[in-house]
Amino acid sequence: MALIGATTIHFIDMSAIGIFVTGGTFDKEYNELTGALAFKQTHLPEMLRLGRSRVEVSITTLMMIDSLEMTDADRARIVDACAQAAESRILITHGTDTMVDTAKALAAAPDRRKTIVLTGAMVPYAFGSSDGLFNLGSALSFVQALPPGVYIAMNGRCFAWNRVRKNRETGVFEEES
Amino acid sequence: MALIGATTIHFIDMSAIGIFVTGGTFDKEYNELTGALAFKQTHLPEMLRLGRSRVEVSITTLMMIDSLEMTDADRARIVDACAQAAESRILITHGTDTMVDTAKALAAAPDRRKTIVLTGAMVPYAFGSSDGLFNLGSALSFVQALPPGVYIAMNGRCFAWNRVRKNRETGVFEEES
Amino acid sequence: MALIGATTIHFIDMSAIGIFVTGGTFDKEYNELTGALAFKQTHLPEMLRLGRSRVEVSITTLMMIDSLEMTDADRARIVDACAQAAESRILITHGTDTMVDTAKALAAAPDRRKTIVLTGAMVPYAFGSSDGLFNLGSALSFVQALPPGVYIAMNGRCFAWNRVRKNRETGVFEEES
Amino acid sequence: MALIGATTIHFIDMSAIGIFVTGGTFDKEYNELTGALAFKQTHLPEMLRLGRSRVEVSITTLMMIDSLEMTDADRARIVDACAQAAESRILITHGTDTMVDTAKALAAAPDRRKTIVLTGAMVPYAFGSSDGLFNLGSALSFVQALPPGVYIAMNGRCFAWNRVRKNRETGVFEEES
Repeated sequence: MALIGATTIHFIDMSAIGIFVTGGTFDKEYNELTGALAFKQTHLPEMLRLGRSRVEVSITTLMMIDSLEMTDADRARIVDACAQAAESRILITHGTDTMVDTAKALAAAPDRRKTIVLTGAMVPYAFGSSDGLFNLGSALSFVQALPPGVYIAMNGRCFAWNRVRKNRETGVFEEES
Repeated sequence: MALIGATTIHFIDMSAIGIFVTGGTFDKEYNELTGALAFKQTHLPEMLRLGRSRVEVSITTLMMIDSLEMTDADRARIVDACAQAAESRILITHGTDTMVDTAKALAAAPDRRKTIVLTGAMVPYAFGSSDGLFNLGSALSFVQALPPGVYIAMNGRCFAWNRVRKNRETGVFEEES
Repeated sequence: MALIGATTIHFIDMSAIGIFVTGGTFDKEYNELTGALAFKQTHLPEMLRLGRSRVEVSITTLMMIDSLEMTDADRARIVDACAQAAESRILITHGTDTMVDTAKALAAAPDRRKTIVLTGAMVPYAFGSSDGLFNLGSALSFVQALPPGVYIAMNGRCFAWNRVRKNRETGVFEEES
Repeated sequence: MALIGATTIHFIDMSAIGIFVTGGTFDKEYNELTGALAFKQTHLPEMLRLGRSRVEVSITTLMMIDSLEMTDADRARIVDACAQAAESRILITHGTDTMVDTAKALAAAPDRRKTIVLTGAMVPYAFGSSDGLFNLGSALSFVQALPPGVYIAMNGRCFAWNRVRKNRETGVFEEES
């Protein structure tokens, strides 16, 4: 067993979850006039409906950007939104390329009493072969079950913010010691 | 916060998960020659591939039946399979109609040191509007994060086996005190 | 070349097409509360939107039934609707099991100046693996291009009403001499 | 009725259809490592399988390119392939942006005894919201039913090569007199 933490927790918290949308592949769409991938609105509500989710959530779109274009100011805005949030459990949708960087910024914030889970997708939800719905179900579950901390939920797994990297050759998130 | 348990746990266990397939709506397919819904093979491996899952799993098909047709002998077989399993974390796919009954049978078993999560789907995975992929992502995550016990993961939530019922009017799993 | 007709025609007629919906597998949906396949509303408008169709159409739902349950009175109603229709080109969506019977009833009608194409689906449109969208694109094209007569468009092919049968072992429409 | 031609034809030709693949949006895929749209293999065989097509076809991939990048040499290669083809009925999948240009090149070729239909898609087939399957069903039907000539099948309609333009503001193919 890979023990990556041990604590007394209140497991399966059924109070409301805060969801912050930041964009990423997750929400990209095909613009049929330009032939380019672009953002319109988030698919989160539609995805939660498809999943027949009955988890009480509050969804806020902070930005709709590719995570490679995310600036320090954008990250500060995400950190601030989490700090201000009334919810103690927060799910963030995020591009996979710099997800680990944002997780680090969140872990460096003074308030450590929240459970924050970042997730994303390798393929846009709007495409047939997307991992988005699976990842959303996974992240929404981890955020309810895990103790305070900052985590990344991808590939069906959940990693502590300081024990993970995205392998750019394979597109897979891996444990890093 | 709906505190339904509190304990010291090793959260996010990355050892292998045992998956037992029993059928249910999850795996039903449309037989285009007869026009009826029927079982062929489980979609679990395909779904895990779509979710880009890297969780180590061992998949065993115990039966492929509608849960309304599940007998006591079938339930005994599921209980036995869980008891014999080498894995301490087990996910069971199951029809939603009698999922709670099987959860009760599992909770009555003498061995209480395993984390067992049952999940299913309201709409077959093979249909466009299925909740199956979301539920699989959810159940696979809860089973990694929760302490020993028997749970039902549906609607993005996770319920202890003795605190849940399926509302047949709405098709939603609800907490029952 | 399988010459099945020869005539002087006005090919590619761009006037409006009458579409009559009668139900069939095409429009069946999964009722997630009962677990049964059933009819709600026709998917035709949504399918034409997905196909970015700009063909002028007038859609009328005549009935929503399984074609195995279609009575002589139902068939008479379809024949009558075609006779009354202002459009000279008509597409009918229909269950595949008795599609040939309805085609025969239409061919026996006194008015022979219309082009009528019946189509359906082996798998409901709402399922991932449906042939429905392909068949709709096919039938809508044949009905624009063919001279007056009654036809069945399935499997990418188009058959004269008196030269076709459904092979129930394979689910494929075949030419019958 | 918009009469755009009149001739004696052998309608519904059931001999083999030649299919030439040239790329275009139709066949674009999302590369999950780079986040870019790119070509791998054609989806034509898979699409014909989904449509349960029983039309005898011979599929040849001539090139896999975006039609904005198509050169005169590429067009010459398509024209030549059509001239050399044993089949008298030919379907070409093509990017929508320069489809009309290729249709013109084909119409200028000396051999006028073939029925050639070009089609494409506004959204890649691999995406949920693609018009590709509808367009393929449509083009495959028009190519069987129409007399010799060069046509474009899009939006459920079929246009003679010299009577059509793509409206770049709406993404719709329109008749041009």
